[in-house]
Amino acid sequence: MPLPLFGLFRRLLGSDKQFRQAVATVIGQDPQNARLYQLAFTHSSVVRAEPGAGRHQSNERLEFLGDAVLGTVVAEYLFRKFPYEQEGFLTETRSRIVNRESLNAIALKLGLDKLVQLDSTQARAARSRSVNGNALEALVGAVYLDLGYKAARKFVLKGLIKPFVDVNTLTTTTSNYKSKLIEWAQRNGKNVRYEISGEPRPGGVMEFTATVLLNDEVVATGMGLNKKQAEQLAAERALAALGV
Amino acid sequence: MPLPLFGLFRRLLGSDKQFRQAVATVIGQDPQNARLYQLAFTHSSVVRAEPGAGRHQSNERLEFLGDAVLGTVVAEYLFRKFPYEQEGFLTETRSRIVNRESLNAIALKLGLDKLVQLDSTQARAARSRSVNGNALEALVGAVYLDLGYKAARKFVLKGLIKPFVDVNTLTTTTSNYKSKLIEWAQRNGKNVRYEISGEPRPGGVMEFTATVLLNDEVVATGMGLNKKQAEQLAAERALAALGV
Repeated sequence: MPLPLFGLFRRLLGSDKQFRQAVATVIGQDPQNARLYQLAFTHSSVVRAEPGAGRHQSNERLEFLGDAVLGTVVAEYLFRKFPYEQEGFLTETRSRIVNRESLNAIALKLGLDKLVQLDSTQARAARSRSVNGNALEALVGAVYLDLGYKAARKFVLKGLIKPFVDVNTLTTTTSNYKSKLIEWAQRNGKNVRYEISGEPRPGGVMEFTATVLLNDEVVATGMGLNKKQAEQLAAERALAALGV
Repeated sequence: MPLPLFGLFRRLLGSDKQFRQAVATVIGQDPQNARLYQLAFTHSSVVRAEPGAGRHQSNERLEFLGDAVLGTVVAEYLFRKFPYEQEGFLTETRSRIVNRESLNAIALKLGLDKLVQLDSTQARAARSRSVNGNALEALVGAVYLDLGYKAARKFVLKGLIKPFVDVNTLTTTTSNYKSKLIEWAQRNGKNVRYEISGEPRPGGVMEFTATVLLNDEVVATGMGLNKKQAEQLAAERALAALGV
């Protein structure tokens, strides 16, 4: 796969050796094919800004692959950790681990924002979206292609889940924030209302934004891949904002 | 994991040896832990009918795991097969390969319906749902746990995709989603409009993005190498987003 951005990376990251070292630190293993990792950190805005480059030379394809690998590793992890839980619990818990916000937070803790290449004119808008979380997924995809499934599994378990995800807390905290908020509102004589909007995302999925209003005043918003998820997150944040 | 259904299987399938042989024929490899495969073929209706058995002893958990493994293997397969296609195309094509109907059809061709254990009172209703496709996903999960990722990958590629999926036809045929969407819109008193934009890609081809708007509200987007393809994909996704 030709990578016209190779030169750009050399300029931005100093030497190839420095880049390899940065990757090795993050993934806990020595990379073989550095170009895969450069691709993982190439946001589509850089590619669009580069004449003659196609969008397939951004990290979006690796993100697609890495998302699947991450989902599998976390699925197996939960399958083994919770032998008596049903499929619904496993699905729900996994989505709490690999959701946009969780991945963005982990990516920032890993310092991926320093490695991700964005077109400068789009950098600010892009930062507010899931750029870093997406790069993290792409990184998992790069490890998978470069070093194989076992290495990708090791990176996910030892480099992401173990240090950054508290699975026990995650599974014991109640998820029903919507009913909690309704109870609070009833006690306090307020009216709760949700406004929902949807936006198409790459891959044909819709991303929903829910806004919680108390007596027609905006309190919080939340995003999710379905309305329920978005509303739950918005309710959770509203409760936090209200100090409940 | 205790399996109270073990005795039941012995009765239904004759000997353990016969069952192992049936599994070996389907997966193209010798199984090690036969109980995993028995679990993969245990529909939740059987478990519910068995006193003292928990639902975690049905194939639903393995289905969760197998779905992820299958998704990863197909993701990598498409990633390598279509190096110049974007993430949207890969996602779309994968969902066409691993959707319920496709998996059910493959499961039947593999004869999994003869291995799946259903509670007799529910058998008829269950047959009409995705029982066999789900068992196929569970089987992929069982191979993964029993023999590892490489073996599961081999089973998916050589035992499922190669013999039963015509990927080239799949990626060139489109059903007529545009007319379906128009029909839906007419029934629901909405106005459908497409916005088209084109972007040059390497090799002198144009890539088109179609956005579907219902009453001027964006519902979905689709991409393609011509306008019709982009509109079809956008219409297909709009129908999915609308739950049609």
